[in-house]
Amino acid sequence: MSGKLKLYYDFLSQPSRALYIFLSKNEIPFQRCPVALRKFEQKSPEYKKNVNRFGKVPCIVEDDFRLAESVAIVRYICQKYDVPSYWYQTNNSIGQARIDEYLSYQHLNIRADVSLYFFYVWLNPLTGKSVDQEKAARLRARLDKGLNFFEQVLLDNGNKPFLTGDQFTYADLSAACEIEQAKIAGYNPCTADRPHLSNWMAAVRERTNPFYDEAHKYVYRLTPEHIPTPAVPADDD
Amino acid sequence: MSGKLKLYYDFLSQPSRALYIFLSKNEIPFQRCPVALRKFEQKSPEYKKNVNRFGKVPCIVEDDFRLAESVAIVRYICQKYDVPSYWYQTNNSIGQARIDEYLSYQHLNIRADVSLYFFYVWLNPLTGKSVDQEKAARLRARLDKGLNFFEQVLLDNGNKPFLTGDQFTYADLSAACEIEQAKIAGYNPCTADRPHLSNWMAAVRERTNPFYDEAHKYVYRLTPEHIPTPAVPADDD
Repeated sequence: MSGKLKLYYDFLSQPSRALYIFLSKNEIPFQRCPVALRKFEQKSPEYKKNVNRFGKVPCIVEDDFRLAESVAIVRYICQKYDVPSYWYQTNNSIGQARIDEYLSYQHLNIRADVSLYFFYVWLNPLTGKSVDQEKAARLRARLDKGLNFFEQVLLDNGNKPFLTGDQFTYADLSAACEIEQAKIAGYNPCTADRPHLSNWMAAVRERTNPFYDEAHKYVYRLTPEHIPTPAVPADDD
Repeated sequence: MSGKLKLYYDFLSQPSRALYIFLSKNEIPFQRCPVALRKFEQKSPEYKKNVNRFGKVPCIVEDDFRLAESVAIVRYICQKYDVPSYWYQTNNSIGQARIDEYLSYQHLNIRADVSLYFFYVWLNPLTGKSVDQEKAARLRARLDKGLNFFEQVLLDNGNKPFLTGDQFTYADLSAACEIEQAKIAGYNPCTADRPHLSNWMAAVRERTNPFYDEAHKYVYRLTPEHIPTPAVPADDD
């Protein structure tokens, strides 16, 4: 099957980045199929018909098999390819349950907290929509609350180095890619009052580089200067 | 471990119902631990400390092990207990991937479509908040669109009897419990122009009764009379 796996992605999509990094870090050969969200390519009838009926990224295609949703894809890849067990705690039902719990939880929490802020504050003005400052403040407060919960409860104020315990897993990578997105909208998740979240993000980046930086280069370029980001790697495309 | 599994749930929570039906249908012994959402019991410090740090239902507790998020719980139960393979297509990585895809997809789609409408139209007035009719109409249109996609694409206009193909799986049960919730808010998902969705809902109910009706008795009692529902079973509590 090597070389037949196609990944449809855009680096401006959080789960696309997580999956790209996951596949690259595990040296799983895949064909890069970029999809330009800014051109709405994911909504074209061809894309919906031939790639992903949901009209979203990421998606994989392997011969006739098409699979959407990054979490489903990671679970499938872990079953089919030779992936080190720590990523998804294969052979450890309790550890795996903790990963599943986070990956299910994040949709309507961290992912929603970040996405709602990002769309309202950054994307709306680009499409000519006005921004109500009161609503922006509400969404910002929601994101503050979500990230404070992340710091205090999920990372247990630094007593847990990673989301599900002592070991780095796919849950960490997925969460970090979600949180990076907020930077584009001028929100700094790694403030001095969230030292554990900042350390954890640095650890996830270190664990998955050089692919983490490669996947985040556009995020960092779009981030306003007052928000600290790692140096962007030289562009080769 | 028999008898040590505790389920924390409320029948007004969609994933609580799905999990309750799943455990009951599979004759997995569990201790019923109802949590009254209407009294905000899930937000109490004791509940967050001893049961679910997210302050939500459902949750299971098994000795020292606590697990939230219905999808994570079902995966864990399928690994640990003797559950017929069709529920989660164990031993079929493609089939399982399709279930995972739906269960991941639904959070920000069908689940969000129904919940946003339900909260805005039904719950807000109960808590004294006003309802803007224009916003209610927008949320209704979103729900219409989501259910039409369900009918036309996910069920392929009746060419797929169940969500992931020919076989009933947990994805169907989860989806049906989400969609039932709309009835409370006076929205009928099973209209004449969605015949396949209507047939599919009837099939899921039949597949999982008498527990489906037991778990939905409060939903049906709260549903306005002009929305058709099955007869509510006699109350024994």
